[in-house]
Amino acid sequence: MALASSAVKDEALVHAAGCLEEASAEILAANAADLARAEQSGSPPSALDRLRLDERRLAAMAAGLRAVAALADPVGEVTEGWVRPNGLQVRRVRVPLGVIGIVYENRPNVTSDSAALCCKSGNAVLLRGSASAIGSNRAVAAALRAGIEKAGLPADAVLLVEDVSHETVDRFVRLGGVIDCLIPRGGPALVSLVRERATVPYVIDGDGNCHVYLDEHADLEMAERIVVNAKTQRPSVCNAAETLLVHVALAGAALPRLAAALGGVELRGDERTRALVPSAVTASDADYATEFLDLRLAVAVVDSLDEAIEHIARYSTGHSEAIVTSDLAAAQRFVREVDAAAVLVNASTRFVDGSELGLGAEIGISTQKLHARGPMGLRELTTCKLVIEGTGQVRQ
Amino acid sequence: MALASSAVKDEALVHAAGCLEEASAEILAANAADLARAEQSGSPPSALDRLRLDERRLAAMAAGLRAVAALADPVGEVTEGWVRPNGLQVRRVRVPLGVIGIVYENRPNVTSDSAALCCKSGNAVLLRGSASAIGSNRAVAAALRAGIEKAGLPADAVLLVEDVSHETVDRFVRLGGVIDCLIPRGGPALVSLVRERATVPYVIDGDGNCHVYLDEHADLEMAERIVVNAKTQRPSVCNAAETLLVHVALAGAALPRLAAALGGVELRGDERTRALVPSAVTASDADYATEFLDLRLAVAVVDSLDEAIEHIARYSTGHSEAIVTSDLAAAQRFVREVDAAAVLVNASTRFVDGSELGLGAEIGISTQKLHARGPMGLRELTTCKLVIEGTGQVRQ
Repeated sequence: MALASSAVKDEALVHAAGCLEEASAEILAANAADLARAEQSGSPPSALDRLRLDERRLAAMAAGLRAVAALADPVGEVTEGWVRPNGLQVRRVRVPLGVIGIVYENRPNVTSDSAALCCKSGNAVLLRGSASAIGSNRAVAAALRAGIEKAGLPADAVLLVEDVSHETVDRFVRLGGVIDCLIPRGGPALVSLVRERATVPYVIDGDGNCHVYLDEHADLEMAERIVVNAKTQRPSVCNAAETLLVHVALAGAALPRLAAALGGVELRGDERTRALVPSAVTASDADYATEFLDLRLAVAVVDSLDEAIEHIARYSTGHSEAIVTSDLAAAQRFVREVDAAAVLVNASTRFVDGSELGLGAEIGISTQKLHARGPMGLRELTTCKLVIEGTGQVRQ
Repeated sequence: MALASSAVKDEALVHAAGCLEEASAEILAANAADLARAEQSGSPPSALDRLRLDERRLAAMAAGLRAVAALADPVGEVTEGWVRPNGLQVRRVRVPLGVIGIVYENRPNVTSDSAALCCKSGNAVLLRGSASAIGSNRAVAAALRAGIEKAGLPADAVLLVEDVSHETVDRFVRLGGVIDCLIPRGGPALVSLVRERATVPYVIDGDGNCHVYLDEHADLEMAERIVVNAKTQRPSVCNAAETLLVHVALAGAALPRLAAALGGVELRGDERTRALVPSAVTASDADYATEFLDLRLAVAVVDSLDEAIEHIARYSTGHSEAIVTSDLAAAQRFVREVDAAAVLVNASTRFVDGSELGLGAEIGISTQKLHARGPMGLRELTTCKLVIEGTGQVRQ
């Protein structure tokens, strides 16, 4: 895989898309069986929805494969190069990581999306999906493997881990020397297992406890638009807002208006919030630390930009943090002093996403600082190699 | 530290250099006490040499601090930036990692070198040196802290871990949430402890089992120069060569000549090597996997470039691998197919070093693939932050 040309890798992905479409009857049948099992075992509707495939979702998966084929190949990119005084020519070149491991939950589209990004960047991928989706994943992986083989590449570039017992995850994260980069996509239990037990290198796709801070000098109309979008446009995802901080000078005008605009959202506020929005329930300290992923929003009134920055430093998971302000100095301080993968000025946190930012498809959003931070695309699935060419130079 | 300007950080380092010079009597006295203790406990001469400070070495440490002050500050560098169709302005900015942890062995110069690089890149550093050097490290750290304070920065940006019991390392590697990046600089036992136990993110400065491959079409004079330099110029360091691979077509002419040129070096060879160099002892499989760090070299004759590449894939630690050849196709294949932090063509492996490559001082050489690969300088002590500026954009 590492040595395959872009043309061949692209051909493999286009073939895989075709095979996925051809196998749609088998895939939907396998998915129906997974769904029936999940329903019987009492899975909640949101889990069933994540698991469900239909013609439209399958078409989107095939389109995703073709879209990744159309992206630029990061492998071989020379990111910098120079000549030393002794004539040595040095260049830094992007190369594949090797073997990527993905642990994920019940969305079968992750199987094809991840495989596409890993193959395009010259990696092999080990996919460990959830037990609930094993039938769907098996059918999707078979189609992908058939497509890859059609292009003359090894089918084993995409390997589904068939043993979905809980013990496998534990063994999986300890495949040091086999997996070059593990990407755990799941809840806090998975993340903590990885941190505690992994012997493999990993990049954590962690929680997003994202804040929107309305500065003293925020335009109210813009503030309302951004808060409503950040909270309600898709509340179940990591870049949705979870806490609203409002400068005390703006609170009287902003909070009642926002409460009205946020109709179906449960507000959990501090005392000063509740004085202005009587319908808000009392926020506990835990509420400020929670990624609700739901139509629920923690709210606090702060006395200053400093207090807002301190609140964020205390509760942030380092994902995405936004300020709404017309004051340049406040924007500059917020951008400089808030420590997160993404800081936004006068824009919705929902933009922190690979495709929204123009980076192409993403394999996750890193909340760690090493290797990748923020949306991870093809480039984050590579490492670099120093190439040093001489004419016989030796060190003095 | 993260918010300090380059000017203030540079001032701190220059003050630290002055304080180090002023404290030379105390530092040398503390070092003499450490040395006496180490001698009593029967440390080998090489360990005593690594521990020893003198006027010249202290002057080099002070010069190192001033040299780092003179390097460009990576913090704030905009590595890329673009505008989205909806008008969002996106840029990726380098920011400090936060708190760096270093675990190292008995060279007291690592205390000042590491502190300089961490401070310059806006980080705080926790230094965990060895028990044998605790007196020297305490005296060096005190001088550095005094210098940092003179510039108005917090002395605690440089913190020496005073408890040097073995249990501390175990606790140190589990300071998740405190240490943003751990750099273990030590032997296999430390590396394996980190891989098994660490909850903190880390970059491994690992072994260098470096190979030099003499291709069928290698210039013999150049080959001799490179092999002698790679093996003997400083055998105790990670970028020294440990194994020599020779194409069978060149072996008859090359091996006796190289054996003569490598006078004081013990050769451990396979059968074909020993047929040409009777003085060579028989190499075991373990010899090919060993980083000797000594005047000892494993040697094997290979039938082809493929066999050389396979041998390297089997035994390499992913540090630095060199080919000597005049054949373009062989050079191209070696560069593409060998998986290591650095691949060299017609140059000594000894060049894989931050200063030799013009990257400035280095805090280690990463043999892992995530975050940093190869020599790690100031840039590798940073992460990035996405800054997204809008005019009220929300996601559709």
